Amino acid sequence: MRRFVADKVKNLINRTRTTCSSHTNVLQRITSSQFLSTLHPSDSMGSDYSSTPVTLNNVNPKVLKCEYAVRGEIVNLAQKLQQDLKKNPGSHPFDELPTLILYCNIGNPQSLAQQPITFFREVLALCDHPLILYKSETQGLFSADSIERAFQILDQIPGRATGAYSHSQGIKGLRDTIASGIEARDGFPADPNDIFLTDGASPAVHMMMQLLIGSENDGILCPIPQYPLYSASIALHGGTLVPYYLDEETGWGLEVSELENQLKTAKSKGINVRALVVINPGNPTGQVLAEANQREIVEFCKKEGLVLLADEENVYVPEKQFHSFKKVAHSMGFGEKDISLVSFQSCGKRGGYMEVTGFSPEIREQIYKVASVNLCSNISGQIVASLVMSPPKVGDESYESFAAEKEGILSSLARRVKTLDDAFNSLEGITCNKAEGAMYLFPRINLPGKAIKAAEAAKTAPDAFYAKRLLNATGIVVVPGSGFGQRPGTWHFRCTILPQEEKIPAIVSRLTQFHKQFMDEFRG
Amino acid sequence: MRRFVADKVKNLINRTRTTCSSHTNVLQRITSSQFLSTLHPSDSMGSDYSSTPVTLNNVNPKVLKCEYAVRGEIVNLAQKLQQDLKKNPGSHPFDELPTLILYCNIGNPQSLAQQPITFFREVLALCDHPLILYKSETQGLFSADSIERAFQILDQIPGRATGAYSHSQGIKGLRDTIASGIEARDGFPADPNDIFLTDGASPAVHMMMQLLIGSENDGILCPIPQYPLYSASIALHGGTLVPYYLDEETGWGLEVSELENQLKTAKSKGINVRALVVINPGNPTGQVLAEANQREIVEFCKKEGLVLLADEENVYVPEKQFHSFKKVAHSMGFGEKDISLVSFQSCGKRGGYMEVTGFSPEIREQIYKVASVNLCSNISGQIVASLVMSPPKVGDESYESFAAEKEGILSSLARRVKTLDDAFNSLEGITCNKAEGAMYLFPRINLPGKAIKAAEAAKTAPDAFYAKRLLNATGIVVVPGSGFGQRPGTWHFRCTILPQEEKIPAIVSRLTQFHKQFMDEFRG
Repeated sequence: MRRFVADKVKNLINRTRTTCSSHTNVLQRITSSQFLSTLHPSDSMGSDYSSTPVTLNNVNPKVLKCEYAVRGEIVNLAQKLQQDLKKNPGSHPFDELPTLILYCNIGNPQSLAQQPITFFREVLALCDHPLILYKSETQGLFSADSIERAFQILDQIPGRATGAYSHSQGIKGLRDTIASGIEARDGFPADPNDIFLTDGASPAVHMMMQLLIGSENDGILCPIPQYPLYSASIALHGGTLVPYYLDEETGWGLEVSELENQLKTAKSKGINVRALVVINPGNPTGQVLAEANQREIVEFCKKEGLVLLADEENVYVPEKQFHSFKKVAHSMGFGEKDISLVSFQSCGKRGGYMEVTGFSPEIREQIYKVASVNLCSNISGQIVASLVMSPPKVGDESYESFAAEKEGILSSLARRVKTLDDAFNSLEGITCNKAEGAMYLFPRINLPGKAIKAAEAAKTAPDAFYAKRLLNATGIVVVPGSGFGQRPGTWHFRCTILPQEEKIPAIVSRLTQFHKQFMDEFRG
Repeated sequence: MRRFVADKVKNLINRTRTTCSSHTNVLQRITSSQFLSTLHPSDSMGSDYSSTPVTLNNVNPKVLKCEYAVRGEIVNLAQKLQQDLKKNPGSHPFDELPTLILYCNIGNPQSLAQQPITFFREVLALCDHPLILYKSETQGLFSADSIERAFQILDQIPGRATGAYSHSQGIKGLRDTIASGIEARDGFPADPNDIFLTDGASPAVHMMMQLLIGSENDGILCPIPQYPLYSASIALHGGTLVPYYLDEETGWGLEVSELENQLKTAKSKGINVRALVVINPGNPTGQVLAEANQREIVEFCKKEGLVLLADEENVYVPEKQFHSFKKVAHSMGFGEKDISLVSFQSCGKRGGYMEVTGFSPEIREQIYKVASVNLCSNISGQIVASLVMSPPKVGDESYESFAAEKEGILSSLARRVKTLDDAFNSLEGITCNKAEGAMYLFPRINLPGKAIKAAEAAKTAPDAFYAKRLLNATGIVVVPGSGFGQRPGTWHFRCTILPQEEKIPAIVSRLTQFHKQFMDEFRG
């Protein structure tokens, strides 16, 4: 029966392929059988849906075009393996290990057992259930400053309870806090009316793509490799992804000459390029932009009349300091009327915000309207976003534990990234740039011709072929580079550095053993 | 300066109007100056944005078309008044009252001081900060069953902490709970793989519109009046709203003959109608569908090959029982392969889910992919959705307080709706149908010709004119009916029944006084 379903899946995929063309040739198409995880029990009975109204021929073609590998085929395969292992322990070579499947595909620290920051959790819990703020037991359970902060936040919420809805841009008092945090970080003013609190960065990116893309003639300059939220959102909104390649040789450098060339090429094809996406630190590539480079990028956007869409994280990297694009633009003398800039920030726990500057009042009205259609983002996420931008200060009861927890996480990440990076670089045919500020590594694999042929025979991208073999042999889940885009003929995969530190040696050893066997099988 | 800004606003609105045409003539256009609340401080200086790249001429025209009155002009006016009153107490006629502005525009119980359900809040707080589960003080602060439930939920989350992300459809264990809740409610099986947990209902509606709308030739049958999420989402995705009118004379009845006529008209215009939206209980209209009516609707969708998009709430109404469309379809003998049905449920606190049945595996794959692009919904909302579908049971420590809180809320709502309904019906020229299951009333105002002329002179819809006068005179915020659509020449407004019960007499008295003065001013 499973073979029957698998064949059916392949047929469907082939049908999908013939009904849609790739929106860009840089994102290699990989087979996606994501619905394996959502199959209805009765589907395997082979009965048909011919009398239901929605088919691949009449579904929105933009949806068919959209791809999202980070949660695609490999993850579904992993979930299937996990179910198999539950039913038949011992059925896979790696199931003697404490955690059977190691999800290194997504940057979710908690699912990989990183403990959340205590101060954030205390404030969240108190805001969720304000009645306990008035009980004596609470003093023993929560720090004084988290109690005080919860009171402050609740005072800013009408009705003093984290209810269903807030202002469409988020609770005003929390936006005030975030604006102050941005001011303190950048040394330039920030306006709470410029802040839109969102459910993570995804809805914010969708909102801006919705605003900018009216037809397939509207193009968005997007790095390759890129986090596929961008390619997916551009495809869903019916625009054209205009790729610019990051230079792997210079540590995934962003060359303005490359931007200029790609812009020129796009214009010659009649594409009206509206915006430039910059991801800093890079995802999946991990590099942090130098300030001088950021100035060039700002100049380029100003000169070419492009909106700068900056996906930014406040990650602290000892060697390279993080500078927001807004700070860079302001330090160059550009003000509100000179450059249109949107900074996307994701703060974990489905919170985040975008800071929107340099748009006319009539366009701000349109952004506000689109935000209003979704009512508002979730209040817990709004609170976390405000806490991240305004953590405990020296002298607060929580300060020392907060600082220790943060430092513990960062230094552990630094050790993990070094161990994994060294391991990758020691393997035959693998090279890996340093991750300077993100939670990922993006090693390049020089796959032997025989492996590429085997992948072709299996109708899968060579890096997806490698990732599947890795998963089946070791239980380690990584995302094939073809999901992010890469220079044609190069192959990569993305691996988070988030597994618990004590598990890293086992991961390295399993990876090394697998890679050797793989190369032995396909070499020369 | 304020006059200058206001004039500027009008010019912009006029410019907006000339660049876009209404996507449907049933939704009367109202002036929207939503960005008043988001104006940048420097905007009022009159400086220009001529060098910024995004203008009303090159923004996505679909965004311009979209309207969303629930959070529109009136709400911004209310916020402005509130700011004025903070600065200059005594500057408005109604500011002797304890709550100056009464937001009756949005159904957010907490902002109108309704206390949240204790059990839900306890479980949420414990899940957000699991460390306290192991402390002795916690026993004194939380009920035994909320502690037990928190442990159960955490056991279902990898890493045992409510972290950043989950499965794209939501945490599997919570979906199991929700599926069991649906089974218990309907008496028919429900599959956790059919459940997609979402940030309230809005993203779910967007997902389905995205799937079904490929171009303006794709139409969606939508009730008029309707909650404007639907018209906004159809406009944003570039489809055509095919209106069907609810019959106010029969308590906002849904006639299948009207559906048939509108479908025929749309087809004759070359519109390919893909789906039927049904809101039950009605929003803003409040009526609950009779089961026989639901069966007709299911038959109609089946016969015409339409996806049934059902916006459903589990509201208990003593007179009329709630039946889900899935239960109705199953009781008619229709199964998974016979009818494509999506049930949207919003559970408060930005949680909710959609239950997706009757789609082929290849289409389910596409829905899953679109859900994956947004990664997942917020975990607090996911938890609340599971708690709503699985509340405390007889014998649980929380059961009695939970039942008392719920009964208290419902009986108070019933008293409030009666008081407000009676008050509206006692006013000259106002008629109001009973709200059977929603949190709103939607009274009709027969406005005098002189008032309609005054509204025309003020370039605003007559019901928006009334709502603005009401707000300025009383501080009560309602949403004009033109934001929801209504039969041409009829005028309504939507008012929530959520203000605290002790405030209702003051609201009624203010409303009555205002209405009399308004009618005296404009009568005959």
